Amino acid sequence: MKLYGAPTPAPNPRRVRIFLAEKGIDLPETRIDMMKRENKSPEFRAKNSLGQIPTLELDDGQTISETVAICRYFEEIQPEPSLFGRTAIEKATVDMWVRRAEFQLMMPVGNYWRHFHPYTAALLKQFKDFGESNVEAYSNAQKWLDGELEGKPFIAGEAYSMADICALSTVDFAEWIGLPIKPEFANLNRWKTEVSARPSAAA
Amino acid sequence: MKLYGAPTPAPNPRRVRIFLAEKGIDLPETRIDMMKRENKSPEFRAKNSLGQIPTLELDDGQTISETVAICRYFEEIQPEPSLFGRTAIEKATVDMWVRRAEFQLMMPVGNYWRHFHPYTAALLKQFKDFGESNVEAYSNAQKWLDGELEGKPFIAGEAYSMADICALSTVDFAEWIGLPIKPEFANLNRWKTEVSARPSAAA
Repeated sequence: MKLYGAPTPAPNPRRVRIFLAEKGIDLPETRIDMMKRENKSPEFRAKNSLGQIPTLELDDGQTISETVAICRYFEEIQPEPSLFGRTAIEKATVDMWVRRAEFQLMMPVGNYWRHFHPYTAALLKQFKDFGESNVEAYSNAQKWLDGELEGKPFIAGEAYSMADICALSTVDFAEWIGLPIKPEFANLNRWKTEVSARPSAAA
Repeated sequence: MKLYGAPTPAPNPRRVRIFLAEKGIDLPETRIDMMKRENKSPEFRAKNSLGQIPTLELDDGQTISETVAICRYFEEIQPEPSLFGRTAIEKATVDMWVRRAEFQLMMPVGNYWRHFHPYTAALLKQFKDFGESNVEAYSNAQKWLDGELEGKPFIAGEAYSMADICALSTVDFAEWIGLPIKPEFANLNRWKTEVSARPSAAA
């Protein structure tokens, strides 16, 4: 089995690294050099037509892309410790929060990065007004999530889950590109401190 | 159990309706009047803090939001016919394609709707240049998906799945807002004709 990735602060490869650390699965990344555009090569596109990392290649040559789908594969082959929930309601609740982390939290961060940050300006056509509008959207998302974390230890409730991994990788990436969590969001900061203290957060 | 929704062409409530039709589960929507902003009322926000539909309320009062999470709940309580896959690799593959349908296909359609369509112009601040750029992005996504459907009956492979439901609701919504599938994408049009012929597509 090969996990194609890159040791960057980018949220998606890191999500898989944190997930594997939580599971205790030792599978180092096979490094793809994004600067050399190895991910856009015909060889890599045969594994993932979108040229994205992470991508998992099984021993029989089948490939799985998309971070959450890769993590779900590992959850299925090694259910413990559970990171996607065990019962129907737990599974649905974790899935809901994974999606909320992506659509409410990661979306504005990604739009800001893609359409406003100087780094991507050199690479892609940006719509700067739109990009900048995501600062407020991300702030609103923080406020909403801070309220949701009132009296709740983790994003999806009582147990650490894939939703925490998605949210932590997002807020850390956001901070790296200049959008830290605002100090007034006490619940969100408390949650970040706690999940960041887990050994997996170093991944 | 109550399913809060609305009988609109909007993709998310329709996904759940198609999913339930495929499962043979009879659970009519409890209608939420979006025009009257019932979904933004304090009563509804107590069920879903984001004020979105669909939202599922279980008999014990627990609620699940996010379309795919709601469908996953029904998959767990009634596994057959399987719409999320049975084995680890099947589950990961369906999840991958659900996400690709959302991020590659629905994203540009949603951005166009949100930031360019005259209907939303009256409701929200739009970034029209950005919105319009999504016409090309959606065309590129169609081209990519058309290639992926070469020799493959369904989005995730040999079996109809949640990924087809996500993609169909997207292309139908896109057509409704003025972005039909281009005629030259023969595989994509063949797939659309086939999945549209299933009784569930009327949902």
